[in-house]
Amino acid sequence: MSSPRTLQWVGDGQGFVRLIDQTLLPTRLEYRECRTVEEVWEAIRVLRVRGAPAIGVAAAMGVVVGMQTHPGDAARLREVCAYLRTSRPTAVNLFWALERMERTFEEVRVALSPQAIHERLLREALVIEDEDRRMCRAIGKAGATLIESGDGVLTHCNAGGLATADYGTALAVLFTAQEQGKELHVFADETRPLLQGARLTAWELQQRGIPVTVICDNMAAQVMKEGRIQRIVVGADRIAANGDTANKIGTYGVAILARAHGIPFYVAAPSSTFDLSLPTGAGIPIEQRDPGEVTHGFGRQTVPDNVPVYNPAFDVTPHELITALITEKGVITPVETRTIRSVLTSAT
Amino acid sequence: MSSPRTLQWVGDGQGFVRLIDQTLLPTRLEYRECRTVEEVWEAIRVLRVRGAPAIGVAAAMGVVVGMQTHPGDAARLREVCAYLRTSRPTAVNLFWALERMERTFEEVRVALSPQAIHERLLREALVIEDEDRRMCRAIGKAGATLIESGDGVLTHCNAGGLATADYGTALAVLFTAQEQGKELHVFADETRPLLQGARLTAWELQQRGIPVTVICDNMAAQVMKEGRIQRIVVGADRIAANGDTANKIGTYGVAILARAHGIPFYVAAPSSTFDLSLPTGAGIPIEQRDPGEVTHGFGRQTVPDNVPVYNPAFDVTPHELITALITEKGVITPVETRTIRSVLTSAT
Repeated sequence: MSSPRTLQWVGDGQGFVRLIDQTLLPTRLEYRECRTVEEVWEAIRVLRVRGAPAIGVAAAMGVVVGMQTHPGDAARLREVCAYLRTSRPTAVNLFWALERMERTFEEVRVALSPQAIHERLLREALVIEDEDRRMCRAIGKAGATLIESGDGVLTHCNAGGLATADYGTALAVLFTAQEQGKELHVFADETRPLLQGARLTAWELQQRGIPVTVICDNMAAQVMKEGRIQRIVVGADRIAANGDTANKIGTYGVAILARAHGIPFYVAAPSSTFDLSLPTGAGIPIEQRDPGEVTHGFGRQTVPDNVPVYNPAFDVTPHELITALITEKGVITPVETRTIRSVLTSAT
Repeated sequence: MSSPRTLQWVGDGQGFVRLIDQTLLPTRLEYRECRTVEEVWEAIRVLRVRGAPAIGVAAAMGVVVGMQTHPGDAARLREVCAYLRTSRPTAVNLFWALERMERTFEEVRVALSPQAIHERLLREALVIEDEDRRMCRAIGKAGATLIESGDGVLTHCNAGGLATADYGTALAVLFTAQEQGKELHVFADETRPLLQGARLTAWELQQRGIPVTVICDNMAAQVMKEGRIQRIVVGADRIAANGDTANKIGTYGVAILARAHGIPFYVAAPSSTFDLSLPTGAGIPIEQRDPGEVTHGFGRQTVPDNVPVYNPAFDVTPHELITALITEKGVITPVETRTIRSVLTSAT
């Protein structure tokens, strides 16, 4: 069973991005059409589309949208890419996808007509989307080898089809295990403040018929203690050269709890999520988000007026706490600079 | 600066319980009058009044309310106490207070008139309230010795004046430290699902002018890693003979994170919270609460229809993770059966 498409390009060169408005899930499945680069920026910014791989695809398509009115214009390309870079600071796939669109533009700008340049950009965005799709499948296949039938699996936030063009990263591992006939029970951390686990992960797993139980973030330790969790699989927003991993706030805490209970902790992400220019996670910028996400998260004020809130969107899990990294190029373990470099530079 | 009274008896023997409806905080400070034992039961059940010590006081006053129509009636007393026992299963103070009311009744039932028996019950409830008040002050005084000026302190849920008759347990430690001129900055876990940290702890600290920052539960590890936390102080709902401590769900996870970051972890509670009949925490019953608290927490559905939720109200922190217990009889450390017995059986 397949889920609705997270995002897609509609039309030819003069088209638009159509994406599920994830802020409305799980009670409403509605699509949003982004016809300007501002609309794409806003969709990324307010998390209508989220998840590092999906942000990369959305940004690439955002470049196409932004160039429709100025085909072949190098100044406009720089402007569009600079603007899209400001939408979310942590997900490296955003920067990776924009650099790829810029490189594509540079390769053809002299030889081709403005219209042909524009078609080339669209094709590149669709290639990025297609690669994402294939990477998700490969991650699922690599990671499913780590899952045994009967496992209870904890996941945090949403690293599913809604976080990618198609099939997910962490959830791809579970989807593939299910397709192989393995029986699973998933515990989804609700993942405050924006509840992507409760709203999105639970919804995706339910769509695919995988049993899922939602817990509040602060229940994870208790569920582990009760012996209900055999593995933990999460996604990533950026991974440094040594394996230190930025992911949704709370991931670092889950990794500590996993270690305390002797439970393997896996991170699933495509190679585009690695930022080998950073030796360690200390260099990863952490996005701070609007306090209103915490104080008015559920439609009602839950914090007194004038009380400050700290709202980092991500944390960094040190590589020592990660049992293995699951990539489209295979499983990396132990997690350290040498093994990461070796797997990522191998031929696919 | 003093806070509004959490709960109090109004009137003489024919009176009622007046309590802050804590479900409406922090946006509305409203009182509720409980004139029947059913109204007291409901107030405990739905957490209009909550916190182990305050539940004990409310239950004792609930007995008085329930006996007003049947002064001196032994069958009615049994019925009222049995009923109130069903309101919350984990807080031992509830059972302790009800046993005390039953013992008082037995002591005087032969010698006194029905009306005099009833007045004796009321006096006992007020003594329990007064003892609670004095115990909170003593806990604050004992615990403040552990706090240094400049400390960042993390707390979970609400163990403040709103959880007791007056001054709190964990927060009493901070209030006393403040009165001693020590400067503090408190981080309050919001404490899903019912957000007692965001709604109540932040409100109480703000009322008393102690700087407080609210975080989501899953941010605690990150805040510890950033070096912002020097101590952790929480309350307790029941403590076994060996020091294993039942407290609000999430406490156990915080204790593991504290250990991983080398941060002292303190539990503050009156001696009435100890249940020496239980050798370890394994025997403490854990209340499971309505899934709706998670799925429809604050006016909006956040979990898909038909997805199950696991909602334990408490967890048990093993004594090895607790640096010290703070009681009205002094600080207990190391936390083990021998030291607990020694301090609790000492003269006050």
